[in-house]
Amino acid sequence: MIDVIFLGTGGSMPTEGRNLPSIAFQYEGQILLFDCGEDLQRQIERAGIGLNKRMAIFISHMHADHILGLPGLLLRFSLLGRFKPLNIYGPPELIEYVKVNQATINLGTTFESIVYSIEAGPVYEDHELIVNAFEVEHRGYALGYQIIHKRPTGVFLPEKAKELGIPQGPLWGKLSDGERVVLDDGTVIDPSQVTGPPPNPIKIVYSGDTRPCDALRNASKDANILISEAMFSSEHSHLAPPRGHMTSIEAATIALESNVDLLVLTHYSPRYEDGSVIEEEAKSIFPNTILARDLMRITIDKNGRYKIITQ
Amino acid sequence: MIDVIFLGTGGSMPTEGRNLPSIAFQYEGQILLFDCGEDLQRQIERAGIGLNKRMAIFISHMHADHILGLPGLLLRFSLLGRFKPLNIYGPPELIEYVKVNQATINLGTTFESIVYSIEAGPVYEDHELIVNAFEVEHRGYALGYQIIHKRPTGVFLPEKAKELGIPQGPLWGKLSDGERVVLDDGTVIDPSQVTGPPPNPIKIVYSGDTRPCDALRNASKDANILISEAMFSSEHSHLAPPRGHMTSIEAATIALESNVDLLVLTHYSPRYEDGSVIEEEAKSIFPNTILARDLMRITIDKNGRYKIITQ
Repeated sequence: MIDVIFLGTGGSMPTEGRNLPSIAFQYEGQILLFDCGEDLQRQIERAGIGLNKRMAIFISHMHADHILGLPGLLLRFSLLGRFKPLNIYGPPELIEYVKVNQATINLGTTFESIVYSIEAGPVYEDHELIVNAFEVEHRGYALGYQIIHKRPTGVFLPEKAKELGIPQGPLWGKLSDGERVVLDDGTVIDPSQVTGPPPNPIKIVYSGDTRPCDALRNASKDANILISEAMFSSEHSHLAPPRGHMTSIEAATIALESNVDLLVLTHYSPRYEDGSVIEEEAKSIFPNTILARDLMRITIDKNGRYKIITQ
Repeated sequence: MIDVIFLGTGGSMPTEGRNLPSIAFQYEGQILLFDCGEDLQRQIERAGIGLNKRMAIFISHMHADHILGLPGLLLRFSLLGRFKPLNIYGPPELIEYVKVNQATINLGTTFESIVYSIEAGPVYEDHELIVNAFEVEHRGYALGYQIIHKRPTGVFLPEKAKELGIPQGPLWGKLSDGERVVLDDGTVIDPSQVTGPPPNPIKIVYSGDTRPCDALRNASKDANILISEAMFSSEHSHLAPPRGHMTSIEAATIALESNVDLLVLTHYSPRYEDGSVIEEEAKSIFPNTILARDLMRITIDKNGRYKIITQ
């Protein structure tokens, strides 16, 4: 089960209702954080995300609205006594940015934070998820991220478990969650023995800031969820190319072309504060579109079924 | 008339009710801004402070909770098309901090911002106010600021104006505001000819972060308002010296020793979120104490009379 929590959904400038961009993936006591908009430390608190979780941070590109919340988060963690290290991934300039912040404004030192300069390709893997970066077309070097759940498990089949003599109880739960178990007689049971054919891996894509591009189309192919920027409505489509952004119609067209299941639009301009024009225009192309809201949560189960919870 | 607007009154970490430290002095279309806590750009908007005001910024010291709102403010001003230059004053490291932020996270370039490294002494003067910095005792180099209204004008005396043949109307207003006027016959009238003896200049002091020290006592001598940090209650007074902060009792003692008129306490720890213990302990020493609240405004007229407006 993965929770995707929208900590900030604003565009360029924060408003009363929308913080600047940040998205948390929460699963099994672990957090992956994509972008760090200003005032993130307060959003983390509001979302109930704990201090000492295992955590990795991914920055899409070096524009202030995507990064200004990072130093405050490091400060808060230090003031509260975080001790677990924190890895941060992003464009090359991120290394100097974090270093100078640490050197000049006293971010504290209760934990180690290491910044990695990354390129397109696989950048992170743990027991549950793989993160692949891909280069998008914004102003300057910019990345999107593809997040893949790597342990898909088929539907649990109780009759098969009974046939193999596995007692009903915790072992069934573990097998159903994709874990191997050992019976009292030493027999090792692999989950594949008691589950149906595995579904496709869950795939979620975050566009970062970009023009429509093949890298985003390819990364999004058959994705369960595409989380995409949609800075402009069609009325201001002339602004999208020079500013390196998309209209909501362009984002919806990618969702359609890439055959995604759900399109979630975020990072639209403050000029459309209620977002209705952004949502309506996208829906005319790709009906299964929703607008991200601050502190909205999408819970995705291992079969890719999702539930949307707004505050 | 000077408006002192508390844009952030929090301590170390922002909370639901309190942004990180920032205080605006607003007068005659001009803004002086002291410290820049995170999310300042949204507080500026909430306080109704305009984009293209003449503005100078003063940073007390290089700790993240006093400075993280500065890059976002520069970004916002640039996105909205500010064109007036902006001078920023503070410790020497501020120069590198702003430079690296500008170089790495695309803060925009619609206006010029120049950073000045300052020491104790006079640092700023315009037609209305003088700002003097003084060095305080925190962890590392830290400044407090003394803000002085430099054109005190006595009470306007209508009978004197009549004697000199000045027609009742706009000229009376200008003289009353301390401006020279020229009559139709070419006679120049100085405000001193039609006003009573000038009162003492209005003096407002901002402590920054500090232990009790003579520099703060001296700067605050007979001040109208002392705006002071009060990080701890007496229960946690043992934390004040190692962390370079004051208890509210220490702040109140300075207010008493320096014979200030009003003591405004700010930047107290989130552990006393409602602030009552901070306020009560200070009042036991110095009764004319209030707690600063976010977006609270103190309006001070030219005679030093003040009015407090909370939202």
